[in-house]
Amino acid sequence: MSTFGKSIEINLFGESHGKAIGIIINNLPAGLEIDQERIKDALTKRRPKGNISTPRQEKDPYEIVSGYFDKKTTGTPLTIIIPNSDTRSKDYNKYLLRPSHADYTSYVKYENSHDYRGSGHFSGRITAPIVILGAICSQILEKKGIYIGSHISSIKDEKDTEFNNIAINVETLKSLIYSDFPTINKSVENKYKDLILNAKNNKDSVGGTVETCVLGITPGYGDPFFESIESVLAHLLFSIPGIKGVEFGKGFDITNLFGSEANDSFILENKQIRTNTNHSGGIQGGISNGMPITFKTAIKPTASIGKPQKTVDLETMEETTMELIGRHDPCIVHRVIHVINAMTNYAVLEVITRKEGTKWIK
Amino acid sequence: MSTFGKSIEINLFGESHGKAIGIIINNLPAGLEIDQERIKDALTKRRPKGNISTPRQEKDPYEIVSGYFDKKTTGTPLTIIIPNSDTRSKDYNKYLLRPSHADYTSYVKYENSHDYRGSGHFSGRITAPIVILGAICSQILEKKGIYIGSHISSIKDEKDTEFNNIAINVETLKSLIYSDFPTINKSVENKYKDLILNAKNNKDSVGGTVETCVLGITPGYGDPFFESIESVLAHLLFSIPGIKGVEFGKGFDITNLFGSEANDSFILENKQIRTNTNHSGGIQGGISNGMPITFKTAIKPTASIGKPQKTVDLETMEETTMELIGRHDPCIVHRVIHVINAMTNYAVLEVITRKEGTKWIK
Amino acid sequence: MSTFGKSIEINLFGESHGKAIGIIINNLPAGLEIDQERIKDALTKRRPKGNISTPRQEKDPYEIVSGYFDKKTTGTPLTIIIPNSDTRSKDYNKYLLRPSHADYTSYVKYENSHDYRGSGHFSGRITAPIVILGAICSQILEKKGIYIGSHISSIKDEKDTEFNNIAINVETLKSLIYSDFPTINKSVENKYKDLILNAKNNKDSVGGTVETCVLGITPGYGDPFFESIESVLAHLLFSIPGIKGVEFGKGFDITNLFGSEANDSFILENKQIRTNTNHSGGIQGGISNGMPITFKTAIKPTASIGKPQKTVDLETMEETTMELIGRHDPCIVHRVIHVINAMTNYAVLEVITRKEGTKWIK
Amino acid sequence: MSTFGKSIEINLFGESHGKAIGIIINNLPAGLEIDQERIKDALTKRRPKGNISTPRQEKDPYEIVSGYFDKKTTGTPLTIIIPNSDTRSKDYNKYLLRPSHADYTSYVKYENSHDYRGSGHFSGRITAPIVILGAICSQILEKKGIYIGSHISSIKDEKDTEFNNIAINVETLKSLIYSDFPTINKSVENKYKDLILNAKNNKDSVGGTVETCVLGITPGYGDPFFESIESVLAHLLFSIPGIKGVEFGKGFDITNLFGSEANDSFILENKQIRTNTNHSGGIQGGISNGMPITFKTAIKPTASIGKPQKTVDLETMEETTMELIGRHDPCIVHRVIHVINAMTNYAVLEVITRKEGTKWIK
Repeated sequence: MSTFGKSIEINLFGESHGKAIGIIINNLPAGLEIDQERIKDALTKRRPKGNISTPRQEKDPYEIVSGYFDKKTTGTPLTIIIPNSDTRSKDYNKYLLRPSHADYTSYVKYENSHDYRGSGHFSGRITAPIVILGAICSQILEKKGIYIGSHISSIKDEKDTEFNNIAINVETLKSLIYSDFPTINKSVENKYKDLILNAKNNKDSVGGTVETCVLGITPGYGDPFFESIESVLAHLLFSIPGIKGVEFGKGFDITNLFGSEANDSFILENKQIRTNTNHSGGIQGGISNGMPITFKTAIKPTASIGKPQKTVDLETMEETTMELIGRHDPCIVHRVIHVINAMTNYAVLEVITRKEGTKWIK
Repeated sequence: MSTFGKSIEINLFGESHGKAIGIIINNLPAGLEIDQERIKDALTKRRPKGNISTPRQEKDPYEIVSGYFDKKTTGTPLTIIIPNSDTRSKDYNKYLLRPSHADYTSYVKYENSHDYRGSGHFSGRITAPIVILGAICSQILEKKGIYIGSHISSIKDEKDTEFNNIAINVETLKSLIYSDFPTINKSVENKYKDLILNAKNNKDSVGGTVETCVLGITPGYGDPFFESIESVLAHLLFSIPGIKGVEFGKGFDITNLFGSEANDSFILENKQIRTNTNHSGGIQGGISNGMPITFKTAIKPTASIGKPQKTVDLETMEETTMELIGRHDPCIVHRVIHVINAMTNYAVLEVITRKEGTKWIK
Repeated sequence: MSTFGKSIEINLFGESHGKAIGIIINNLPAGLEIDQERIKDALTKRRPKGNISTPRQEKDPYEIVSGYFDKKTTGTPLTIIIPNSDTRSKDYNKYLLRPSHADYTSYVKYENSHDYRGSGHFSGRITAPIVILGAICSQILEKKGIYIGSHISSIKDEKDTEFNNIAINVETLKSLIYSDFPTINKSVENKYKDLILNAKNNKDSVGGTVETCVLGITPGYGDPFFESIESVLAHLLFSIPGIKGVEFGKGFDITNLFGSEANDSFILENKQIRTNTNHSGGIQGGISNGMPITFKTAIKPTASIGKPQKTVDLETMEETTMELIGRHDPCIVHRVIHVINAMTNYAVLEVITRKEGTKWIK
Repeated sequence: MSTFGKSIEINLFGESHGKAIGIIINNLPAGLEIDQERIKDALTKRRPKGNISTPRQEKDPYEIVSGYFDKKTTGTPLTIIIPNSDTRSKDYNKYLLRPSHADYTSYVKYENSHDYRGSGHFSGRITAPIVILGAICSQILEKKGIYIGSHISSIKDEKDTEFNNIAINVETLKSLIYSDFPTINKSVENKYKDLILNAKNNKDSVGGTVETCVLGITPGYGDPFFESIESVLAHLLFSIPGIKGVEFGKGFDITNLFGSEANDSFILENKQIRTNTNHSGGIQGGISNGMPITFKTAIKPTASIGKPQKTVDLETMEETTMELIGRHDPCIVHRVIHVINAMTNYAVLEVITRKEGTKWIK
């Protein structure tokens, strides 16, 4: 069941090499105009391109098949479909398990009846509809003054400046949102790309981390316990293929501080309550405190590599060696960052409308 | 709404200084005997004690008020209540915001109508019913050969040995499960306690990390996307007060490896498919692969400290200084570890029964 | 799982002869004052009394154990408990199946581990917490001008005047809401009571129908398909023990009309759109049209009767005859009517807040 | 949100005159073969045909776009789409409210942004995907010996024989399931058709009732309160456009009986527990008792009629008269009966798998 949401329910569907992939977005209010240029831009950013990506073409010509009429939402389920094309299904062998892919787990779970071609429903390609979702949600949030942007905070051991070392404002975030390969410190971009190309030349891959910031969310959203902002965000972030860690505010590093260092003291700024540090990442007791919400996500190195790897052939039940020939990404961090942004936009809209109702959107 | 679960739904309720706290557990099958000694043991472990804890007494004399008859579950909602006692409500000032507590966020969210006494519904005390839940779930899982144990992997900068450096087996886990203050390397215990006592003496606090292992889960549980094991576990772990980070397998450190290092090669072991490393933490594509599921959780230093702190008084809307006098924990890692175990037991049972149905339990 | 609701989630628990019964109400906004006199009145009305009821005493001294502080809701789960007393558990034989009770079905479903005493979780007694819920919801709705009242439209073959034959207004409804034994035509009350007493004297029972009216709901609430007002209301009404039929507007009788007779023509009344008839019962396409919402509910004769009945003894697996000795209601229509009102108040509040968010409540 | 289901979640989408309508079916197990002939047959039966239907052509050439591979389900979301064609969108005037249609309520709810063409998402056409769903569910159930069939129990004042007056067996049901225009007493078919044709000639319409029987369901399925079989079934039945009443077993007529007449005595039949009557309709305490589950549904006369009707023009806000010219059904009972069957098949599969898990399906 690829379904999420209490306020704005989404339903993902599709396989990498099936007829189509898509999403239903439920409960958007009627009468909402959607800027489709934003959707196209977002899809373009997620798409592989340049020498640091797979040469697989993903044109993603999406189609809105329901819930949209006269250039506005109708209030009924909004269904968006992306037909599949440029698939080379013959590249895939069902029984030769690709290490650190879902080949083995899906084989067991679906009792050998899964669509194994190109990872099927497990494919990163299924995140394209999430990017569409994010492009719709960000339009809504930005009208309310809420901006969500991310930067590639590290590729392997190279690191970018962090949000808590700069003055974050809407302009900073916008420049990240509009960027194809977003970094705070521009000089790090080439270091990142060198690492990626180097890995590519070695038939290897690299991973990295992404840091995200939600700016403009007022205090009081979220809940204690099971609907905490951290719970909702982490749930959604960990649903993105390849994510292995999520931390909020200072994250794991907060455990190296004393309480007296870690606590965020309250101060007054223009008669508004703020905290003088933001180690909590804008969330206390699961609820927004009005400071920027910040979190970091770990993305593992792409599992598909050209180097020879040991594995097992399920048909013969023998150990063997495989080499993945073909079109794979030496790094997906600069693509997944756009999925993280999309998912965060959706998560924030979901959290806010759980409190305000979906009428808030208009 | 403090509700979770599709297969086994739970509903938490209560405030720290209200009449009672408790939990409803829905959908357990009828005819299940519950070993109440396990519940009592679990509550004892979570309870503050010794000189490294708050002197607040929490006796937790729970009562099963529905769904249990003739020493067996009846199949209808199982409701368990812990009446509150030993509360000193006068210790709390509604308007003097304790830094890094939920005082400010709950004030805003609930428009000044929250029960602020002892953090109300945000209190760590509300985790006692979760510990009861965990004690029930672990009985069920252990009968099926699934064991869940954790160790304190760090307190501030002191670190324990990690799971991936030892041979994990049921006996190792059992010794952690039955321990009050679980560490793998016994010699680290005193270092941890020294750090805690030192912080206490300085009216300060420390945090740490907990590493958890699920042993015995067979391949094929979990789902892609929104019902991935990582999503369900992270959702539940981040609902525990004080958690700031969750990472699976090698977690954030996996981003420092090349793909060829990070990938877990498949091997055959007694004709069974295994991986030669476990950087994925037992999960691929959101689904269990039969290896131990391992993850680490970051717990922030206790926010309640005796040292003077800057804050704001909401009544006067002026900045001021506060000293928290009274009974607080210099460290909660050795208490929260039991909540993490409980939550993980519940999460694993939930994931398994989503596939198998609750009939699996009996 | 005795759970319902997307906007305002409720969780029922308890058995007739267990320690307590109760309810959790989730998602009420903070700061709501609850008039507890309304709760007490509602419980009194549902309670058996007089010679037309069982002599079993149900004092229902409820207790709010969480989510309520300083005479206002706190915004966290509101838990209300009614301890059980005056139970005569010895009256019940687990294996002698009472006809048209849930004795056999619960025996099978719960594999002989159910709490069979007094019907356990199936007892009409579990509707007392629903009456409390209704008393809270009706306070909220009435402040917004929405009134919900019912009358006993029939007992066996005696019938009351129907809503569509009178001018319905707030005063009519209020007189029904405040009545213990609500009828539109007062002269029918004695006929009803005679039928009930007659059945009682014959160790028999009677059933009847209840007609309900929701007044003051504006157009535009509800949804097509699975969240239609009819779906939500029927779901909740059929969850009340003893209900065998639900019909909206003209209900089954509409099938005797031609379309030209059945259709509700639109007219203008003070520049407002109304319909000249209300055969649709105020709902079109699952959505309120601004006319009174009307529906009728069938309540079967009480299954517990003193007359000898044929049945099977599960212990001996032989056919036998049983006589139910003791305290049972010859009719429950005049008690269930208050549960129907309560459930309808909850249903209407749920439908409205699904659209408006729970902020609408305050 | 057009979503239902806890075990097998379904998501409906589409508008009558949009690009496509469709359904996602979540949680079917992998490896299930689907007999597509059953789907085609079911769509044919629902389709208008002959002189008693609208001449609108609905060819329903559906396409499975995800979750199906190598002629088997893959275990991931199964998405089925029916592209729209033969739409005459110009026939519709947004502001001229058709009486007893959802024109006014959807105008208000969606703030004038709904797709009004051919009733949009409110169209009976959206039930075609439900018929596909039903054809899949019935294949599964029939393999387990569970058969679901219905007959047209009345058209206006003409009535068919009822289930409780005949010996129901699998053969009886099968003949109804395979029939295009199912009646028990074949001689009533012409009376029904005469009534329909007569109404058609008068530019009028008629409604009727459908009686349904679920045969072969063993005891113990369902739940008390909110997951009672009645609640789940009524919820789903009332989501079908045009349904105004649902009653189980003897339904409203049970209120005319004394308890001693209404109660279903338990008897032994081949050492199996049965009841000698089935006034309860196979359900006690919300749970199946092993007897056939029977219920009746009221379908209102088609709202679209050719006769002149009074209404309001929203554009001018004046009362006026309208005549619906064009292609409408003088009766939809013989079409909706197939939707009722489909929905019941889904409801029963949902209820059973809530207890058994979806593994039961294979």
